[in-house]
Amino acid sequence: MRIRLLKSLIPSCALLLFASFAAWSQTPPKPQTPTPPPASYSPQLRDQLQAVRDAALSSDYAWHQLAYLTENIGPRPAGSPQAQAAAEYVAAELRKLGLDVHLEPAQVSHWIRGEEQALLVDYPGRVPDTTQRLALTTISGSSATPPAGITADIVVVHNFGELTALGREKVAGKFVLFNVPYDQRKALAGMAFEAYGEAVAYRAGGPKAAAQLGALAALVRSVGGADYRLPHTGYSVPAGIPAAALAAEDADLVEHLAAQGRVRMSLTLTPQTLPDVTGYNVVADLKGSDHPEQIVVVSGHLDSWDLGRGAIDDGAGVVISMATAEILQRLHIRPLRTLRVIAWMDEENGGGGHRAYAKTHAAEFSNHIAAIESDAGAGHPLGFYMKMTPAALAALHPLLDILRPIGSTVFRSSEYSPGSDIEPLVEAGVPGIGMIQDGRKYFDYHHSAADTLDKVDPQELRENAAAMAVIGLALAAMPDPLPR
Amino acid sequence: MRIRLLKSLIPSCALLLFASFAAWSQTPPKPQTPTPPPASYSPQLRDQLQAVRDAALSSDYAWHQLAYLTENIGPRPAGSPQAQAAAEYVAAELRKLGLDVHLEPAQVSHWIRGEEQALLVDYPGRVPDTTQRLALTTISGSSATPPAGITADIVVVHNFGELTALGREKVAGKFVLFNVPYDQRKALAGMAFEAYGEAVAYRAGGPKAAAQLGALAALVRSVGGADYRLPHTGYSVPAGIPAAALAAEDADLVEHLAAQGRVRMSLTLTPQTLPDVTGYNVVADLKGSDHPEQIVVVSGHLDSWDLGRGAIDDGAGVVISMATAEILQRLHIRPLRTLRVIAWMDEENGGGGHRAYAKTHAAEFSNHIAAIESDAGAGHPLGFYMKMTPAALAALHPLLDILRPIGSTVFRSSEYSPGSDIEPLVEAGVPGIGMIQDGRKYFDYHHSAADTLDKVDPQELRENAAAMAVIGLALAAMPDPLPR
Repeated sequence: MRIRLLKSLIPSCALLLFASFAAWSQTPPKPQTPTPPPASYSPQLRDQLQAVRDAALSSDYAWHQLAYLTENIGPRPAGSPQAQAAAEYVAAELRKLGLDVHLEPAQVSHWIRGEEQALLVDYPGRVPDTTQRLALTTISGSSATPPAGITADIVVVHNFGELTALGREKVAGKFVLFNVPYDQRKALAGMAFEAYGEAVAYRAGGPKAAAQLGALAALVRSVGGADYRLPHTGYSVPAGIPAAALAAEDADLVEHLAAQGRVRMSLTLTPQTLPDVTGYNVVADLKGSDHPEQIVVVSGHLDSWDLGRGAIDDGAGVVISMATAEILQRLHIRPLRTLRVIAWMDEENGGGGHRAYAKTHAAEFSNHIAAIESDAGAGHPLGFYMKMTPAALAALHPLLDILRPIGSTVFRSSEYSPGSDIEPLVEAGVPGIGMIQDGRKYFDYHHSAADTLDKVDPQELRENAAAMAVIGLALAAMPDPLPR
Repeated sequence: MRIRLLKSLIPSCALLLFASFAAWSQTPPKPQTPTPPPASYSPQLRDQLQAVRDAALSSDYAWHQLAYLTENIGPRPAGSPQAQAAAEYVAAELRKLGLDVHLEPAQVSHWIRGEEQALLVDYPGRVPDTTQRLALTTISGSSATPPAGITADIVVVHNFGELTALGREKVAGKFVLFNVPYDQRKALAGMAFEAYGEAVAYRAGGPKAAAQLGALAALVRSVGGADYRLPHTGYSVPAGIPAAALAAEDADLVEHLAAQGRVRMSLTLTPQTLPDVTGYNVVADLKGSDHPEQIVVVSGHLDSWDLGRGAIDDGAGVVISMATAEILQRLHIRPLRTLRVIAWMDEENGGGGHRAYAKTHAAEFSNHIAAIESDAGAGHPLGFYMKMTPAALAALHPLLDILRPIGSTVFRSSEYSPGSDIEPLVEAGVPGIGMIQDGRKYFDYHHSAADTLDKVDPQELRENAAAMAVIGLALAAMPDPLPR
């Protein structure tokens, strides 16, 4: 239930991976379907795969593209001039490579952060005539306060049940703080997306739950793992009230003071949710030699949140997809099928990009052989989430030998789409693949001001580009298309 | 020379420790002065020392005091109502313990942060009609810009030599960025204060050097070890120009863009340096039974920077000093000499607190047996810096057995005062002692918004309280005063 709830609430890069994680962690192992014997690849294909792998491992193409996107263009929220410029830039770069490039229009969200300030104006022990300023950031479903802000007492809860138990009588007219920590221990145990999912339910759905009981505003503890007083933004369901994420330290401050007595906050948030605008997915084809109608998608999303510069979320996914095309062209490798590079728009907030693609390309879905998305950062690539049949998994088995030198050895079955932009494809039956990056620190930076170029290690980015290029080429060049 | 330069520039908590570190790391070991044989303590004194140690290790007195100072009172910059309230609070708490408490007036600095905003308004590849906002914070010697800010091109340098080489022609009319990193590797190698000293020279003295060549403003890379886009404030020599610290990520952004072409910034900083005001050192005596005129100082500084809540810098130092008195009173231990708890004011900016103490108490300096300061955080206490004669060191040798169960086993000779507030005492010949805390992460949080209560581990704080209580009691209760 929680998973379905989340799926309906969060058009987030992380949701579907989380859902898979949650399912695995909560479900006892099932008896395995008998697996077909592993396939083998021709010596020529093996040579090509090794060649693209090694070319990616010695190339800084992806790094230079990422530097331009993050530092010269900067933050790229959907609907912004930077997002538009980024799409044009990526399209031009892919045209330079000789691809057939289209900027495909999509109705995308257009949200602009405004002023944001939270002051504790009364609390136990407060020094007269002083306030304490909290670190916080608006989340996307927030309504605006008046410019001078609104002031109310804060009630603190730790789950939806506590909120319900308080009831309208104790919630109406107040600010509700959901102080639910992201469990960093889970991240260290390889369960970062489960930890994210548990906490993000409150960012996404907390404001609505609070509004339904008459709260004047909703505050959530930032969903993140580090302790540097960093607020993390993100999507929330519009609930008709102001909504913001406090830095973890400030959520705890409020909780500690509220345990001692009345805590009163003055809150000013002035975001603007503007009408949707026309944005663009970049869709760039390297046409297949024998089956140009058969399509293998390699992709990441080009939009980012506005606080940082969108390096790990998800400039990295875009540039390693671009790098796959660059390497094939540089090595003059023309696979049988079409390799389609997609830089998605509006993954973070409205999901307009993939909705538009699903509408425009519905007729081609039966010819989409597989769809790959990288949207979990640029940490070392450990392997792939696979949403496909056992027969399809078996057909990819020979890749493990090619990938082993990169350090990517994990093929992990997924029950859900391992990427939110490829979800419409996966739901239509297309095999879906998501890259598994080392995610131990991903949520330390995710959706915060600290998502900047330096968070990407150049060597790890090369490894990611190599893993993407290997699996992308394999899917486009195998003699038989991946079975559905 | 660098050390002397720094000494004249920086009234900082860290300077003197740094100076010691730097001296050690650069000087070959000297032949040792013959050391007197270790002393031994009476069974009664040993019992008392063990009792205070164990009492501290099982007490949350220091923690509760730290929580109140950081969360109920909050940031405590010198001259602020919170700093005043904190002095009154600490005085009242020490009176509750039965100490003879005085609020001793001192002329202290009064600096107020204003608006702070930096926008890159032109740079290579900039998307038309967009800017990039940088994370930065004003440093204390900054002049104010006009409210609408000032705009200029940025030149980037990495040391004073590069600045000099550029000369007035290339510096005048521009903003100078000193992009000098804090070397985190040194912190991991136990040389955090050396790393700090190397970088902080630019925060302290960079603005003046830039102003002398006609720069319109000075920017420095934040002196800190973490990568969470966190600006770190601090003292700088007033230079008649605006001055601020950029987050490390933003210093690198400017550097990267400036390598590609012209980078132009709009900078707004509106700090106010107000006239000095009367602040207070808290001076609280637990009178000695036999030699009340002989004084042992245990101390930390009560003021903090305004961005965080002053937990590691230096609420921790104050509360472990308070805890020493609390334990002695609770265990009814009355040492021969007077134990004097001091909570210093204005360590961070003007140094007014310890200057006033030196003036008021000059006549007593010959009766100050030793002065202890804790101002390097609340990490696990590894031991002590000792600025004293070999004979004095030998007299403290028996303490190692008492301290070993805490995990404090390091007595490290220092050539300089191991604390800035006790420096006037040390310069007058009083043996000086500074606590050595595990400093690997200290500068990740230091002087930033992230200096909050959660950065202190309750068990490590107990260990610090135990170490302070043991050495404080020993100095006050040894049969003979520590030799000078």
